Amino acid sequence: MTLTLPTLQDVQEAAQRIRPHVHKTPVMTCETMNDWSGLRLFFKCENLQKGGAFKIRGATNALLRLPEPRPVVTHSSGNHAQALALAARQLGVEAYIVMPETSPQVKKDAVKGYGGRVTECINTLQAREDTAHRIQQETGATFIHPYDHPHIIAGQGTLMLELLSQTHDDYGTQLDAIIVPVGGGGMLSGCAIAAKGLDPTIRVFAAEPLAVDDCAQSFAKKELVPQTRPHSVADGLLTSLGSYTFPVIMDKVDAVFTVTEEEIIKTTRMVWERMKLVIEPSAAVGVAVALFRKEQLASFTKANGEPIRHVGVVLCGGNVDVKKMAALF
Amino acid sequence: MTLTLPTLQDVQEAAQRIRPHVHKTPVMTCETMNDWSGLRLFFKCENLQKGGAFKIRGATNALLRLPEPRPVVTHSSGNHAQALALAARQLGVEAYIVMPETSPQVKKDAVKGYGGRVTECINTLQAREDTAHRIQQETGATFIHPYDHPHIIAGQGTLMLELLSQTHDDYGTQLDAIIVPVGGGGMLSGCAIAAKGLDPTIRVFAAEPLAVDDCAQSFAKKELVPQTRPHSVADGLLTSLGSYTFPVIMDKVDAVFTVTEEEIIKTTRMVWERMKLVIEPSAAVGVAVALFRKEQLASFTKANGEPIRHVGVVLCGGNVDVKKMAALF
Repeated sequence: MTLTLPTLQDVQEAAQRIRPHVHKTPVMTCETMNDWSGLRLFFKCENLQKGGAFKIRGATNALLRLPEPRPVVTHSSGNHAQALALAARQLGVEAYIVMPETSPQVKKDAVKGYGGRVTECINTLQAREDTAHRIQQETGATFIHPYDHPHIIAGQGTLMLELLSQTHDDYGTQLDAIIVPVGGGGMLSGCAIAAKGLDPTIRVFAAEPLAVDDCAQSFAKKELVPQTRPHSVADGLLTSLGSYTFPVIMDKVDAVFTVTEEEIIKTTRMVWERMKLVIEPSAAVGVAVALFRKEQLASFTKANGEPIRHVGVVLCGGNVDVKKMAALF
Repeated sequence: MTLTLPTLQDVQEAAQRIRPHVHKTPVMTCETMNDWSGLRLFFKCENLQKGGAFKIRGATNALLRLPEPRPVVTHSSGNHAQALALAARQLGVEAYIVMPETSPQVKKDAVKGYGGRVTECINTLQAREDTAHRIQQETGATFIHPYDHPHIIAGQGTLMLELLSQTHDDYGTQLDAIIVPVGGGGMLSGCAIAAKGLDPTIRVFAAEPLAVDDCAQSFAKKELVPQTRPHSVADGLLTSLGSYTFPVIMDKVDAVFTVTEEEIIKTTRMVWERMKLVIEPSAAVGVAVALFRKEQLASFTKANGEPIRHVGVVLCGGNVDVKKMAALF
């Protein structure tokens, strides 16, 4: 089967399509972070996005690409569940969310708070898929994948179009590189398509927890290595790459950098305390690369051989139990 | 002695004067906070200001009002110390900061990090004043009060000029009221002068911890009641009103609302988790009034008798040990 991968035009059309329904999030800078990294960093604040993460972009694009308004279903215990529920409410359709009965009550409540219809099941992939399938049959709902779908990928990529235009318009800067966290790769591949589409010389770096380095392994081996029994404090990045996201990443990403759990936790605290922004640890993974992988970053240059200096970093979300997180500091 | 109180024009001139040296901080909104408060809230994010708090505004204005560049001195263990050190460094003058030897190392380090010259002394007001006086004599430094001075008050008021123009220009909204935390009253009186100067019908509400309610008491008794043995989690608001701030507050503030320690802590967490902004508990005091004093707020109306709806809330700072703070959640 030949997959049709999303293009820059798909991302640009997604941006037009979802504009009325999502925030254009701010871009922030921080002198202290610049000093520590030796770079000029531009942070794209998707933690300030509706629903607290970038996921609303892909979910909204996927819903608006349906041939007609209809119910949707997914299984997720994370940001995708909240985002789909919120996007569906904004667009006036039903969202059925299958969640493991072991999901924290706060996450179930968040989905319900956005109007999502939660169905609980036992915590196995099989049970989740079976339950979602049953709901599809009963309700005619369309299944919306959390990341491995062209409409999701195109939607997530819209954040990078914004970042590039904001750094240009507001700071008079052209980015030399971007650092994007990777879990399933929906955001990374969308951002890579947007960035390389607009500027083929821009460097695209993926940031991944060392503890769940399936993307780094896949990238090195040039074959999709699935993630098994994942565990990381960056709980938004535990999933495997998919059939769409893997080839995009192989084609457009320059390097995959990994960071340790300790570096992720330390960086989360740094961003909270110095930038006054609450980010989830998954968002700290990209920042940690800028702070703790200077030598590896310096092994890459701009196309003209000059050092990389202006770097966009995606703060992908801020959904975290702040009390539990701070207890790790 | 007749005091010459600062005017709207003083605040407007301060805004011009300090503009190159401070951030124009963003104004944020939050649907969840609107739902909870039943109001439309506009948050002025001084936690994103240089140095992490509004204090850089007054400090910079005071330095620029000196007849010539010269060293400055203050005694403070809080945001004023950091702000004065940072403002002095930006303007190329020396800042001597007298700090009690009992101050947390992190605060001493922060002041030193901004280039301030820290002199430690024992933790009594007498020792602090004596040490500052000695430094004045030895170095010719000018003493800069943390809040009770017209130049400081005018500087702090510049945040309100920004908030009013930002809500007008970016949101097409005219504020019916503002809620401003009060400690020594420098920020409150500056904001009141700016707001009432531009719109005499706007309501100005002070927000104070019940545990240190000297402003509420002073306001009720119409005489300055000093704060004695203060303790509140909102550790930026422990000081007494001053000879300049008290008469401004009596003249221009419509009401002083108090909130409990529990409400302050709960609100701090709400802002962290829902708005993804790290604020210090002093900043939560204003938000807590909007969330937990609905009935008292509703007893005030606009000049035309309509209910108050559009309310500006000042998030005055974000300097807090996030681990210690979250342990209170």
